[in-house]
Amino acid sequence: MATSLLRLPSPFDAHVHLRQGALMRLVTPHVQQGGIKMAYVMPNLVPPVTTPSHALSYLKELQALSPNTHFLPSMYLTTNLTPAQIREAHAGGVVGVKSYPRGVTTNSEGGVGMEGYGVFDEVFAEMEKVDMILNLHGEVPSDVDGDGCCVLNAEPRFLPHLLEIHRKFPKLRIVLEHCTTAAAVECVKTLPPNVCATITPHHLALTIDHAVSSPLHFCKPVAKYPSDRAALRAVIREGHPQFFLGSDSAPHPSGNKMPTMKVLRSTLDGGIDEVTLPSPCAAGIYTSDNLIPLVATIFESSDIPLERMSGFVSEFGRRFYGFAAKPEDEVVIRRIGEGKVIKKAYQFERDGDAGREYVVPFMAGEKLNWEIVEA
Amino acid sequence: MATSLLRLPSPFDAHVHLRQGALMRLVTPHVQQGGIKMAYVMPNLVPPVTTPSHALSYLKELQALSPNTHFLPSMYLTTNLTPAQIREAHAGGVVGVKSYPRGVTTNSEGGVGMEGYGVFDEVFAEMEKVDMILNLHGEVPSDVDGDGCCVLNAEPRFLPHLLEIHRKFPKLRIVLEHCTTAAAVECVKTLPPNVCATITPHHLALTIDHAVSSPLHFCKPVAKYPSDRAALRAVIREGHPQFFLGSDSAPHPSGNKMPTMKVLRSTLDGGIDEVTLPSPCAAGIYTSDNLIPLVATIFESSDIPLERMSGFVSEFGRRFYGFAAKPEDEVVIRRIGEGKVIKKAYQFERDGDAGREYVVPFMAGEKLNWEIVEA
Repeated sequence: MATSLLRLPSPFDAHVHLRQGALMRLVTPHVQQGGIKMAYVMPNLVPPVTTPSHALSYLKELQALSPNTHFLPSMYLTTNLTPAQIREAHAGGVVGVKSYPRGVTTNSEGGVGMEGYGVFDEVFAEMEKVDMILNLHGEVPSDVDGDGCCVLNAEPRFLPHLLEIHRKFPKLRIVLEHCTTAAAVECVKTLPPNVCATITPHHLALTIDHAVSSPLHFCKPVAKYPSDRAALRAVIREGHPQFFLGSDSAPHPSGNKMPTMKVLRSTLDGGIDEVTLPSPCAAGIYTSDNLIPLVATIFESSDIPLERMSGFVSEFGRRFYGFAAKPEDEVVIRRIGEGKVIKKAYQFERDGDAGREYVVPFMAGEKLNWEIVEA
Repeated sequence: MATSLLRLPSPFDAHVHLRQGALMRLVTPHVQQGGIKMAYVMPNLVPPVTTPSHALSYLKELQALSPNTHFLPSMYLTTNLTPAQIREAHAGGVVGVKSYPRGVTTNSEGGVGMEGYGVFDEVFAEMEKVDMILNLHGEVPSDVDGDGCCVLNAEPRFLPHLLEIHRKFPKLRIVLEHCTTAAAVECVKTLPPNVCATITPHHLALTIDHAVSSPLHFCKPVAKYPSDRAALRAVIREGHPQFFLGSDSAPHPSGNKMPTMKVLRSTLDGGIDEVTLPSPCAAGIYTSDNLIPLVATIFESSDIPLERMSGFVSEFGRRFYGFAAKPEDEVVIRRIGEGKVIKKAYQFERDGDAGREYVVPFMAGEKLNWEIVEA
């Protein structure tokens, strides 16, 4: 008989976007609702979290919204960051620094450009010294008219940068975030345990076929070949401790995810005077609201044994980040016969009277096979 | 100084979708408007055009809507098609038979399945005998949970089928439609002149980066790597006579291309009762309305010499299909200083009082550098 109850030692989401303002107020409590006890929060706000004081004031906001979740703060890597700030951040409890290659995803305009990572040597040296984590968005910016980099090869082309940073700073703890390719999995497996990778639930479920046919399945990095998805599944299946959950849950107002044309004025003869065409779709998939039941459901549909859950959603990430699970923070999930339907949308009022908006979760309207047992 | 006038001998679009009903009435006159004198029309209607009589009645409809365009009719390959029907179709003026792998694109539910192409041996033998053209949608159906076929490798994996059909029927004239990969270009180049390929303008302009980030850039086959796009550009640049224009212009009502969620009922407490989530986006890009000026504009931005236009948009396709250009059908385009803005949308009333809808052309709102000189 299939397992019907699963005990998980204090689940940890090592990569989540909690935004700002009204959207932050909507999604922050969902972290706990999804069965997560500790969450490492991304700094790509507007403006990005580039200073220790900003990181800590943002942390305070989140903590007030959800006092029972342990939020870990991060900072955004820019060329303005100094070794002194690294020491200050570390002393203040900032856990890591996130590097975004410029322009590859939501609010990454201030990220690392063609100058490469050499300019960060002093900062990385200080991070290595104080043992602060470097989180890498592992994609080279697309340059389809230049060097041929595109969303499909952006991650494999990033791997030499990962190897070079690791070579220069062999003790620096590094996370290759939301890895999506067999090449990335193979690369991280060759490195020692101070280099890890996170994997999202949606990349265990989707391929490029899903990504191209619906904006709801569009995220960065994009889901890739079935063989890449198979490599992600396989490394979790083997219980590899360098690969753990980072949901990259990334809520967007549905109007940004699924922009549509607006016909502002039609003429009498059937012509159209004024049309607003849709902008590109925002990249990101939202999973916080049901994260742990979702991961269990996707493990089963991906043929990953449920006994791998505990390592993937808690132990491996906690060990790497250095936060042991407290016994009282155990989360229990149970299999449900009927299947619980995932909410189709969450409603919220945009900031500044910008009207009502919605966040559509991943697999909205589909069924979860697991639910959290309330304590 | 850059060429400012270009004379083209009777442009031929070797692959166009003209649909049915209201949408057909909207787009059929656009073929002429776009500078095309002869157009080979696809048979994936609802129901598909599977008989000679249906092909000819459809032709009559199109011809009535645009009397000065020379439309070439096609039939849809199904296992019900007989050698006798091939003879009848050929005698009636049907030019070719289009093969759709089942489920890969718009209205392809009746297409070729896992049974493969062997079942069509008698039909193909008859087509070879009467010299009728076989048009191949060159993609194997995606099977991301099975054999790992996905939108990215679907075309390379189809090439063995092309080679096998050609091996069995060496005199059969075959067109590999809308080829999108370096692998397909290389494959066709190894084959004799009775096997050709069409190339669309949008595949000369787009890559996978565009395809994933906007439904307006989603088509089947999807645009692929920059290196694939480079191979398409290169084969046109060398003036290879086995590669010619087939626009695959494929209009969809914008509501199908860019489906969005509908919130049907909100509750007082901020919850939502009923939401309709968007369906997958319809695949297809619309280019008929400005086709020849668009091709010239894209040639320039793709660094393809304009002297390749005449072969690509007319001579090579006409020679293959066996319809010589009439001198009075010359089309002249001229460079325009200011750039003409592409219409953002065409409005039409859907059939059956289903309301107003819009077709958004490729590069809507962007500028064309060329325009047709009215005779």
